[in-house]
Amino acid sequence: MTFKVTPWEVSGDLDYSKIVKDFGLEVINEALMRRIEKHAGELHPLLKRGIFFAHRDMNWLLDQYEKGNKFFLYTGRGPSGHTHLGHLMPWIFTKWLQDKFGADLWFQMTDDEKYVFSDRLELEQTKKLAYENALDVIALGFDEKKTKIFLDTEYAKTLYPQALKVAKRLTFSTAKATFGFTNESNVGEIFFTSVQAVPAFLPSVIKGKNIPCLIPYAVDQDPHFRIARDILPKLGYYKPASIQSIFLPGLKGGKMSASEENSAIYTTDGPETAKKKLMNAFTGGRDSIKEQKEKGANYSICPIYHYYKQMFMPDDKELAELEHDCKGGKILCGECKQKLAGRVADFLVDHQKKREKAKSRLDKFLIRD
Amino acid sequence: MTFKVTPWEVSGDLDYSKIVKDFGLEVINEALMRRIEKHAGELHPLLKRGIFFAHRDMNWLLDQYEKGNKFFLYTGRGPSGHTHLGHLMPWIFTKWLQDKFGADLWFQMTDDEKYVFSDRLELEQTKKLAYENALDVIALGFDEKKTKIFLDTEYAKTLYPQALKVAKRLTFSTAKATFGFTNESNVGEIFFTSVQAVPAFLPSVIKGKNIPCLIPYAVDQDPHFRIARDILPKLGYYKPASIQSIFLPGLKGGKMSASEENSAIYTTDGPETAKKKLMNAFTGGRDSIKEQKEKGANYSICPIYHYYKQMFMPDDKELAELEHDCKGGKILCGECKQKLAGRVADFLVDHQKKREKAKSRLDKFLIRD
Repeated sequence: MTFKVTPWEVSGDLDYSKIVKDFGLEVINEALMRRIEKHAGELHPLLKRGIFFAHRDMNWLLDQYEKGNKFFLYTGRGPSGHTHLGHLMPWIFTKWLQDKFGADLWFQMTDDEKYVFSDRLELEQTKKLAYENALDVIALGFDEKKTKIFLDTEYAKTLYPQALKVAKRLTFSTAKATFGFTNESNVGEIFFTSVQAVPAFLPSVIKGKNIPCLIPYAVDQDPHFRIARDILPKLGYYKPASIQSIFLPGLKGGKMSASEENSAIYTTDGPETAKKKLMNAFTGGRDSIKEQKEKGANYSICPIYHYYKQMFMPDDKELAELEHDCKGGKILCGECKQKLAGRVADFLVDHQKKREKAKSRLDKFLIRD
Repeated sequence: MTFKVTPWEVSGDLDYSKIVKDFGLEVINEALMRRIEKHAGELHPLLKRGIFFAHRDMNWLLDQYEKGNKFFLYTGRGPSGHTHLGHLMPWIFTKWLQDKFGADLWFQMTDDEKYVFSDRLELEQTKKLAYENALDVIALGFDEKKTKIFLDTEYAKTLYPQALKVAKRLTFSTAKATFGFTNESNVGEIFFTSVQAVPAFLPSVIKGKNIPCLIPYAVDQDPHFRIARDILPKLGYYKPASIQSIFLPGLKGGKMSASEENSAIYTTDGPETAKKKLMNAFTGGRDSIKEQKEKGANYSICPIYHYYKQMFMPDDKELAELEHDCKGGKILCGECKQKLAGRVADFLVDHQKKREKAKSRLDKFLIRD
């Protein structure tokens, strides 16, 4: 079983404990959960259930927080297409962190990255998609007074000079070893990680003092932040703390794929489209109803189950019952999918209303200078 | 005899005919000179005397010009220190082109380049130097209505998205072969040429139509523009035409060196400092006055002579007399230096007055958005 996890390719059978080891992460343990709970007053299901499963320097961050040295949040999106539910998941968690810790959020739209790495996208397209994606961010309810969203190309006057400071300290050799670049990689690809490092220290530059940073992200983005952690101290800034999630699996099994529309539910999908995708999804079920009733199903490999676990069944008791019923053959896949389709439909209808309203609120969030 | 000519290092005994061959330039011939003269009404001494000695696509550019398709000029400065007379020389020629062809000029200050390539300069310093250098550009008398000066870091909101379009089409392999990068080169160095390519097509982007571009530059900048010529057509723009100069030699013999202050006269030098540098300069003279009177001196290797030829003796008859007297031993180096020091002093006093006035005019030239 081999797998590959880079910012541009996730494939194979993911072994998260190997990822922890290879990337040099720490698993989130009980003590850390209790510590977060102490400050937040509760634990988000994504933490409790191990979806956000690993971290770097969270204890240091909480030490700082306890001393009154508040952190800011930084996360982002590579606008290569419309937003799907798998993208929303870490943002939902980020919003929870913003609410519970009163943290500012810097949200980066890497329209530059998605352009230089893409065979099919023009810059005008990645910019347009960034604006589309921003609507989804805003729809999640981030605090407009505490949240700044920016496109790399539009915010370049601020970002580019800071990116140069990172770039000057990053050799091709290191970039190559970290991202697997070759002689055929283009020079935009090679430079890009410098830009992704900037929001981790930009608030410190602007405020003229060192501010702790926490970056929540799906674990494929880790190579960028390993580089950021290496270089920021050389510029006099803190290493950013970080917290990593696993992925929401694709509906066809395996990872969600941009080239397979039916593997993910997009925030712009109508409830009927979403339902169709869910009803056609791969599951952990058996070949026949009879067999499933007798032997039960395997929820651990089932994307439907993971949709519940990560986003659509926050109640622990209800989830435990589902697991029990699935394993025991008491619930069949069709019924389980139907129920999820209802919840997803409710979510989409609500989200799309908020997304529509976000259109007139874009200017409250976007920074361009 | 070996030599090296890159944007960051010029060393060895320069063989300009080998440079023409290696770089794939065309020598400026009589026919082209006559063609330029026809439109300009005269020939600038720097052209007549072969200081601007080579070109690419000048005949195409004049074809366009004759069809009413006017070109714009693009040149620039890497702000790694104060401006010296060797920097002014191509700018003086560029001003002549602006005057004679009514051309807009885009003047790039590569504060980003000088930062990422330098072991000693911080970005704040290269920015500050860019402003200092801009005073010298303005002091030369460029038309404020037709001249835009910009710093790469300040103009990044406009430049960076366009640079990405170049970067996407430039592999590390090509950048490496062109500039000699290694695994230890930093990713800012590797990316930079993308930014230097932008002004060659930016006016076309802004105006929404293809506009011919002419880039005058000292020949060490050629690698950048070979890349620009390769990539711009892929973006739908004309290849920029270009015209190349040799260097003003250093006063100590060889090339002017940033690390040897006495090898160049800076625009900020007082007349006495300049005089001292000139009086201490290397010349083509003989070991003794007696020998020089008998055998004459060798003006072709003499920096004092080249100062006259390139900047301080526009009158052809006077220059021919100087050559004659030097070769014939009729003029000694001390006298020749004294005379030049007087001319240089006059120039500096006048230039420094204009430079002082330029401080209040910076905003008329600088673009930042």
